[in-house]
Amino acid sequence: MGVKINKKVEDIIKEIKFDDRGLVPAIAQDVKTKEVLMLAYMNRESIEKTFQEGVVYYYSRSREKLWKKGETSGNIQKLKGFYYDCDKDSILLIVEQVGVACHTGNYSCFFNKVLETKYKNINIIEELYSLL
Amino acid sequence: MGVKINKKVEDIIKEIKFDDRGLVPAIAQDVKTKEVLMLAYMNRESIEKTFQEGVVYYYSRSREKLWKKGETSGNIQKLKGFYYDCDKDSILLIVEQVGVACHTGNYSCFFNKVLETKYKNINIIEELYSLL
Repeated sequence: MGVKINKKVEDIIKEIKFDDRGLVPAIAQDVKTKEVLMLAYMNRESIEKTFQEGVVYYYSRSREKLWKKGETSGNIQKLKGFYYDCDKDSILLIVEQVGVACHTGNYSCFFNKVLETKYKNINIIEELYSLL
Repeated sequence: MGVKINKKVEDIIKEIKFDDRGLVPAIAQDVKTKEVLMLAYMNRESIEKTFQEGVVYYYSRSREKLWKKGETSGNIQKLKGFYYDCDKDSILLIVEQVGVACHTGNYSCFFNKVLETKYKNINIIEELYSLL
């Protein structure tokens, strides 16, 4: 198992700026739909385990321990991409979500709508015409 | 200006769980490409200003003040969607990005690649066949 990456995990961990609790926020985005699924926190150990096993581990702030996403529900997240930002203090995980991401049964944790988006989806017919 | 929403801003602010600094992490996602652009923090005032003006305000932790995204660069973010998560402690903003999101000149702040994703884009021809 595990994933092949372009740096040593220890070097990635050295670069990332963890907060005073030793945590960094991590966004999980769906590799197929690009939907944002959740935001959780990672510590050094959870990043190591994520690369070792190829499935996402977070750090649970409420339970104060390492948390393998989907450990009890089976709704694991297979790691497909790993990015960090310009300030090196947040992470973007691209994942293949098994089942649903949210413990409520929703696919994404961001189901509370205040202002709902009409995504500007590319119209398949228009795109086809552009190919002719 | 401003945006029409399905709740009073004061009620949204009451629902959201701010941390001990009065902040909540907010993810900005592009309305057209669905690319994740950045992660920053909002306080109560920045949420109010965002709905009032229809463009995104954050709270700058380094400058310790309200921060209108793109105020100096012109690279503003027009608000197109606003969601919060199951735990009510993180926000997802859907935005129309003017120019680029990152101060480095990159479109997204998440340009540091450790493991690069090959997005599973829907094949236009396959989708067309499925419609026949």
